[in-house]
Amino acid sequence: MGNIILSILVDNQAGVLSRISGLFSRRGYNIESLTASVIEGNRTRITLVATGEKEELSQIERQVSKLVDVIEVKELPVQTSVCRELILVKVQVLPEDRAQIISIADIFRAKIVDVSVDTMILELTDDKDKVENCLRLLEAFTIKELVRTGITGLLRDSSNL
Amino acid sequence: MGNIILSILVDNQAGVLSRISGLFSRRGYNIESLTASVIEGNRTRITLVATGEKEELSQIERQVSKLVDVIEVKELPVQTSVCRELILVKVQVLPEDRAQIISIADIFRAKIVDVSVDTMILELTDDKDKVENCLRLLEAFTIKELVRTGITGLLRDSSNL
Repeated sequence: MGNIILSILVDNQAGVLSRISGLFSRRGYNIESLTASVIEGNRTRITLVATGEKEELSQIERQVSKLVDVIEVKELPVQTSVCRELILVKVQVLPEDRAQIISIADIFRAKIVDVSVDTMILELTDDKDKVENCLRLLEAFTIKELVRTGITGLLRDSSNL
Repeated sequence: MGNIILSILVDNQAGVLSRISGLFSRRGYNIESLTASVIEGNRTRITLVATGEKEELSQIERQVSKLVDVIEVKELPVQTSVCRELILVKVQVLPEDRAQIISIADIFRAKIVDVSVDTMILELTDDKDKVENCLRLLEAFTIKELVRTGITGLLRDSSNL
């Protein structure tokens, strides 16, 4: 079992996202996360994380690269890529917990982007490990809502130095 | 024409992402951006941005909410939500441009997360306007690669204060 991060450049045609995710689901593979956004007029870059048998994942990767409207498929190895994730987490804040939650935000350099009488929203961008450590600490309180973009990334040029 | 941000909570079943994006593409609507990530064992939260006729978008929204495995669909109004986007941008760096690129990173509080002989990768998380302003300034140089997660967001509790 392994984890694969694919960076897929596509022509921005209706249906391409559905066809790519369909390739995984037809084989019963769940996509752990996916981000897709237009990056110029007619191009969208998709970053997709899937878990499964190495061999079968490589097979799906080859099939993705053959789809109409798919321009390029690259694997992002964690060692030679910048991989980041953005999360927003709404935490219930009891008066006696406030200081502790703020200090967790400080430790992880998370931003406090909304404060109400009894909740706070923290924004954190970091690699997967840091994000998960932060969430683990916040689980001591009540997480009311959570949203994660999933991993996005670029190959590091510095690894060629 | 309008813009809609949908926050969709789904059961983490193979195929649900493909069915949701298929609903949009079958009507010829392009999804501007989409993020999807597992948030607990069997739940995935999807944030989707689409542009089109207000009325037709609301119709698609209703159809999404009726899909199997879809638990909840909420619209995120920009005024009462925290909406954020993460981008990574690899910029070509000529020696004479280095100081200027670093100062753009400083202005937008972007992090420099990779440096090679002739490139830098900047990481920025902010709202859509700030992200686009930063990209506009960087366009004076050569953008070698760009990846955006697209918008993700949560409703602000502070808007009920």
